[in-house]
Amino acid sequence: MEDLLKIVLSRPSHPGNIGSSARAIKVMGFSNLALVKPKLFPHSEAEALASGATDILESASVFLELSDAVRGETMVYGLTARPRHFALPVLTPRQAAEEMVKNPQKTALVFGSENGGLLNEEINFCHKLITIGTGENYSSLNLAHAVTICLYELRIILSGKYKKDKHVETTNIPIGEIINLTSHFLDVMEQVDFVDKNKIKYTKLRLFNLFKRNIKDLSEVKMLRGFLSAIQKKNL
Amino acid sequence: MEDLLKIVLSRPSHPGNIGSSARAIKVMGFSNLALVKPKLFPHSEAEALASGATDILESASVFLELSDAVRGETMVYGLTARPRHFALPVLTPRQAAEEMVKNPQKTALVFGSENGGLLNEEINFCHKLITIGTGENYSSLNLAHAVTICLYELRIILSGKYKKDKHVETTNIPIGEIINLTSHFLDVMEQVDFVDKNKIKYTKLRLFNLFKRNIKDLSEVKMLRGFLSAIQKKNL
Repeated sequence: MEDLLKIVLSRPSHPGNIGSSARAIKVMGFSNLALVKPKLFPHSEAEALASGATDILESASVFLELSDAVRGETMVYGLTARPRHFALPVLTPRQAAEEMVKNPQKTALVFGSENGGLLNEEINFCHKLITIGTGENYSSLNLAHAVTICLYELRIILSGKYKKDKHVETTNIPIGEIINLTSHFLDVMEQVDFVDKNKIKYTKLRLFNLFKRNIKDLSEVKMLRGFLSAIQKKNL
Repeated sequence: MEDLLKIVLSRPSHPGNIGSSARAIKVMGFSNLALVKPKLFPHSEAEALASGATDILESASVFLELSDAVRGETMVYGLTARPRHFALPVLTPRQAAEEMVKNPQKTALVFGSENGGLLNEEINFCHKLITIGTGENYSSLNLAHAVTICLYELRIILSGKYKKDKHVETTNIPIGEIINLTSHFLDVMEQVDFVDKNKIKYTKLRLFNLFKRNIKDLSEVKMLRGFLSAIQKKNL
């Protein structure tokens, strides 16, 4: 899949966005960048923002027409910010990523210019559209951010790492240690007149629940008990 | 949820990244930006890259210390590029977003400097970590791209009117209470000669992590602090 995907930036006007997109491409584990009529390329600002991904810029192919850039692809997705009146399916980045991974083929992801996105004649070359959801008041997503989001969704699926419930906390503390720690706390509390005798059962319960729920490591028990012993030695 | 979330950039060195992050914040429907020791701010490059989101920059709060920026938060997530040796849960952006929406509370998303990410002492203030999956060869994600991905995941869930699940642990404790409780403990520990001066930083870290992870209720903080005060009153 990584080798089958081509990221196409059509008419990018800011070289910084080309560089920043190249960085996102490399970070997410992809490599094929194509540029259609870039306003300024190559350019020092593209290189600066590419950071460690200048190799992506160096191997980028440059075209005069979008039709040339996507000629060899069997599936072309176009990014659009708003719903358009085209008889094309509109997907979220996640849906598109799922499709791509399920059915690997020569695929292009096409992003339009920073000023207005894809033109109608460019959308014409797309099989499907992708729209990235935004808040309601301001939907002007940066070009490189849009590239990042699409490739991030692909990376998650390709890595196969997304599992819903893997954070089970474990503890290796015998409950007796918690009981002893609670008793030790209560002893010191009584010695410093912190608990009144009538509430001692309630305080004990609260402390025990606090420790039982929370202490995950025997060294924490030892630290707390050492502290309690130090208090007792000091002044009682 | 939108109003409860604060995006914190700690020690950002490039003003362009501040602006670009502000744009992502606004696009994804959020608004609260906090900066800790920004190298250059305000700055024309931040404004240029914020595009239509200069209002986010104008209303950003600036702090000298991360602890001040997160003091009022009850849940602090820190972004890290690589696994670290901390006893903190590590989530994907999607898992974190699900948690946040299930259990809305005052939450900070903390991003470290472009040069090396969060420092250990910054991670210390976090309850949980978030790692964004990347390809294997190059994992240097741009700061604003990381912000974009985290907020994009939140936007998807928020737009889908995610249903509230009732089995999520909640906490209502501002992290400042945990900071103060830790200091109080250390005071007493010094007074009873429990810590040696050379290890005080390490002990502080262990205590802070213990309390941060575990205390779920302000009344527990009050009980422990009352106990500490009782010790102090009794014999020092």
